[in-house]
Amino acid sequence: MSPQDDQTLTISGLQELIRVMYSSKDEKRGIDGTFMWLMEEVGELAAALREGTPHELAMEFADVLAWLATIANVAGVDLQQAVLEKYGRGCPGCGGMVCVCGLDEKP
Amino acid sequence: MSPQDDQTLTISGLQELIRVMYSSKDEKRGIDGTFMWLMEEVGELAAALREGTPHELAMEFADVLAWLATIANVAGVDLQQAVLEKYGRGCPGCGGMVCVCGLDEKP
Repeated sequence: MSPQDDQTLTISGLQELIRVMYSSKDEKRGIDGTFMWLMEEVGELAAALREGTPHELAMEFADVLAWLATIANVAGVDLQQAVLEKYGRGCPGCGGMVCVCGLDEKP
Repeated sequence: MSPQDDQTLTISGLQELIRVMYSSKDEKRGIDGTFMWLMEEVGELAAALREGTPHELAMEFADVLAWLATIANVAGVDLQQAVLEKYGRGCPGCGGMVCVCGLDEKP
């Protein structure tokens, strides 16, 4: 896989990239320790949404996505399969490809 | 795009799927309101990591990923481009495709 060459990346490709890059450390850290890192990154994302430059903001999104992939790896969850199952055929609330749930409803 | 047909989905494809499904609601909700929903989903993910069935856990990962894509849409960030820039050529800490940073270091 050469994600840098064609500038496209599947969700499975991201999960595999992160697995190769970090799996030995992730196993030592475990789910609880990894979740703490995700929370730190979520906090940094919140800060960047408030006051970051566009590039800083993009990099914080990248970090949250990478840590989410890391936890999925540790937990043995296939992110692509999960999101296709829940959202690939329409909104889980109303079933539509364009959601018509009320604004206060969850999706 | 028919993500349900071939069971593969790029990160850009996910972001577009979520944009089509939810953009009109997302614009009304704004970044702050959308971030609150992400936080709720992160809480549900934490609960599922503790005590969920494998399927419940997978669906909570899907929700967090979908809400992250939603916020990226509202904030105008290209998630795929961001993660390729930060992680596509190696660990942002050590530069390796297999990270050799210390366990206490961030990545």
